[in-house]
Amino acid sequence: MEPTSIILFGATGDLAKRKIYPALYNLYIEQKLPETFSLIGLGRREWSDEFFQAQVEKSLNEFSRRPADPERVKSFVQAFRYNVLNISHKEDYIQLLKLVEQREAELGIPSNRLFYLSVGPEFFEPIAENIQSSGLGSTDGWKRLVIEKPFGHDLQSARDLNRKLSEAFTEEEIYRIDHYLGKPMVQRLETLHQSNPIMKALWNNRYISNVQITANETVGVEERASYYDHVGAVRDMFQNHMLQLLMMMAIQLPYNSTTEKVGQKKKHIMESIEPLQKQNVGASVIRGQYAEGFIQGKAVSAYAAEPGVAEKTMNDTFIAAKLQIDDFFWRGVPFYIRTGKRMKEKSTRIVIEFKEPSGQSNTAKSNGSKPNLLVIEMSPDQSMTLQLNASDPQNKGEFKPVHIDLAPDREDLAEAYENLIRDALQGDPTFFAHWDEVELSWAWVQPILEAFEENLLPLHLYPAGSYGPVESDEMLAAEGHHWWFDEPSEQSAEDALAAPLAVNSNL
Amino acid sequence: MEPTSIILFGATGDLAKRKIYPALYNLYIEQKLPETFSLIGLGRREWSDEFFQAQVEKSLNEFSRRPADPERVKSFVQAFRYNVLNISHKEDYIQLLKLVEQREAELGIPSNRLFYLSVGPEFFEPIAENIQSSGLGSTDGWKRLVIEKPFGHDLQSARDLNRKLSEAFTEEEIYRIDHYLGKPMVQRLETLHQSNPIMKALWNNRYISNVQITANETVGVEERASYYDHVGAVRDMFQNHMLQLLMMMAIQLPYNSTTEKVGQKKKHIMESIEPLQKQNVGASVIRGQYAEGFIQGKAVSAYAAEPGVAEKTMNDTFIAAKLQIDDFFWRGVPFYIRTGKRMKEKSTRIVIEFKEPSGQSNTAKSNGSKPNLLVIEMSPDQSMTLQLNASDPQNKGEFKPVHIDLAPDREDLAEAYENLIRDALQGDPTFFAHWDEVELSWAWVQPILEAFEENLLPLHLYPAGSYGPVESDEMLAAEGHHWWFDEPSEQSAEDALAAPLAVNSNL
Repeated sequence: MEPTSIILFGATGDLAKRKIYPALYNLYIEQKLPETFSLIGLGRREWSDEFFQAQVEKSLNEFSRRPADPERVKSFVQAFRYNVLNISHKEDYIQLLKLVEQREAELGIPSNRLFYLSVGPEFFEPIAENIQSSGLGSTDGWKRLVIEKPFGHDLQSARDLNRKLSEAFTEEEIYRIDHYLGKPMVQRLETLHQSNPIMKALWNNRYISNVQITANETVGVEERASYYDHVGAVRDMFQNHMLQLLMMMAIQLPYNSTTEKVGQKKKHIMESIEPLQKQNVGASVIRGQYAEGFIQGKAVSAYAAEPGVAEKTMNDTFIAAKLQIDDFFWRGVPFYIRTGKRMKEKSTRIVIEFKEPSGQSNTAKSNGSKPNLLVIEMSPDQSMTLQLNASDPQNKGEFKPVHIDLAPDREDLAEAYENLIRDALQGDPTFFAHWDEVELSWAWVQPILEAFEENLLPLHLYPAGSYGPVESDEMLAAEGHHWWFDEPSEQSAEDALAAPLAVNSNL
Repeated sequence: MEPTSIILFGATGDLAKRKIYPALYNLYIEQKLPETFSLIGLGRREWSDEFFQAQVEKSLNEFSRRPADPERVKSFVQAFRYNVLNISHKEDYIQLLKLVEQREAELGIPSNRLFYLSVGPEFFEPIAENIQSSGLGSTDGWKRLVIEKPFGHDLQSARDLNRKLSEAFTEEEIYRIDHYLGKPMVQRLETLHQSNPIMKALWNNRYISNVQITANETVGVEERASYYDHVGAVRDMFQNHMLQLLMMMAIQLPYNSTTEKVGQKKKHIMESIEPLQKQNVGASVIRGQYAEGFIQGKAVSAYAAEPGVAEKTMNDTFIAAKLQIDDFFWRGVPFYIRTGKRMKEKSTRIVIEFKEPSGQSNTAKSNGSKPNLLVIEMSPDQSMTLQLNASDPQNKGEFKPVHIDLAPDREDLAEAYENLIRDALQGDPTFFAHWDEVELSWAWVQPILEAFEENLLPLHLYPAGSYGPVESDEMLAAEGHHWWFDEPSEQSAEDALAAPLAVNSNL
């Protein structure tokens, strides 16, 4: 790995503290950082190098997944310098360039520069522009730009942002973080069917009945209410994380796959998803907003009552959708996606349900056998299991499911940010969101945004602590499917439908 | 289960003692015997009922897989009576009929009669004939004939035997035991792909590279030498057990399969195996005989030097063969079969090797991944595992095999004889060898028998304690395959080839 300067915008922020410093430290411990590197933290606050280093140390003590060893932390933070920077002050970038060059000279390293933008999206453009105009971006080595979500708030704004960034960085130099792509189980999924011919053989509409991608949270909007109220589940989760998971699930990679191939295949998937018509969004999209309810026995208020949320808000805190990929491999296989806040339990998972033998329904069968499933759990637990039927030796002719662990050795798993920062340092863009995907995702989502905006489909209230509106269950039931692993409700779906709000007072 | 009389020929013999009584006892404990049953043991020796019962008790103490509980053993053996019988004395059968009827009357049970022939094959015909002529076979209930192997010693003798038996019993009444079909893992194999659409999907030439069926023993011929010397591995193991395992592996069963279906499909497999030409047997069959060598460090003598073996014997103690099933599912998938005595280790297993992605060789790959395998171990351990590749979290891009247990809960597995005797009592012939299969097996094997007889192919000596002649390995190597799980030899195959006998003196 080549010696590098990491130039971190937002060095005093929360993401840096919780994710970036711990990730860098763990990479350092595992000798997965360049042997020599310089990190220059940038912020508006007036910090000294020493104070900055002490803050990094504190964050490691609090957030590192490995105990922070005092000795090693000391040597780690020696690479850290701090520079005050006002994002819109061009002269600050000249000053920054001097510091970067000075450190490069001190360390005797080439001018490989990784610009990491851990700041609000409104700052992406001015920073990129100033990097360009100040000469920071004119390096003899390489330069890379790492940016966090959100990448635009609709198709047009994403295109505008990308055009601006493109003036300073080429597409190959831009690393858009979608931290779901850094999750170990997602990375393993990508390799599972590549390395296993028998999994690859099953990866199509001949054997797969449906795919379910769930990202449920129990938390509400918390301090983010005024931001979230303009964003909703569709922008916050669906357009980026959920569609990225869908792409990673659906791509058919050749054996010796390259990064370019991954990008091409993901693009192909997005291009193949049947587009929605704005007027008809309601046929395959369920919009929900949480009402008051109970989360683990504790009463919580309705979204509409959260501080910071607009009166008469029509914002979506839940979205479920049925997508169809119209290509050779996936034609006829529904991909069900849902994500919501204030759900009954926190869980991020992909369930691949395999087809039953012809003539068999996909409900429990008399001999005890269950559908074959591949289940990828990303949160709160991480696992990958295959559910098969084994015959029970004590009951001839009876079957029982066996659960097969396809991802053993889960102790000591890298955090998503470790994987992603390492890849960015190595110049491997495989697990980042490429522009084509981002653009196509926004394009696909655009009719949903407009249909929501124009209220062309109902906003279903669902009790906090439930699995979202019953319409989400009904969408699957209409095709003979059901969301796997939802705990049965204490009240029947029918009762809940009749009085969605009254449900809670009895819980 | 209907009340039954079990009429056991060979009640004083070794098989009865080691297998049949323990199996019956364990079924009794598990309440899998008819509530009321009568067992009448037959032999030439002059035993009283009490002495017989005491012998049974002794055998349970010695051979039952469950500790024999004295109380329960007492109540179990109360159903046992003994009758002296000379197989060729017609009047003894008249006497037997009286006893059977007397016991049926005492117990108030209908005349359902299971005749179990635990005797040498030379007695099958006279017993069947005498059952018929004495009136023992004229029952108001059902009658069944259970017979042990061997069923003939070539195609003609098997047909003769079957014609004789058919005069007294219909095909539906004849239960030919091949105890390999009673093995729990074989019975699970049959149901594995039936109950798992994703296994079923993989069960063909599109995904399977080759199938290997091995039954290796470390023992030599022991006291059976003079018998074995006229039989060889081809008759003792290959024609029956090995081909039955091949059939069970290769059949493609519909979801709700019946016994008739299993029989039809097995017949179809035997009919689809490409026939051999006598003159050309050597192209796909390796004949071996063990020379002196070492088994687990202990010197053992050559087969030719065993007491009871003919001078200049050309008998086969090892056979390996490559079979091709020419049907839609299996065309192009070699089935490798081998069985031998005095092999390096005892193991009975089926290995299904799945194809590698196109362009990949099936040898170890640079990224650490291995071919996907399904491994069914029948002896000495019993297990069913699927080998997949999982990516190693500590080494991105590296894979390591994970072994998936498809047959958990292996404690307390029924013995093959328990499964088979229970099935015979219930009238379920699924896991027995049907005449069509037996006849087709002999027909397929007939050119081998003749080629061996006429010495149309070499007899390769192999050192005791090896994996058989190197020609067996070369047969697979010619197609880019190798026998899975053979331990690497201490000497290279080339050395062994150059001096097959000298190898041993250095071990």
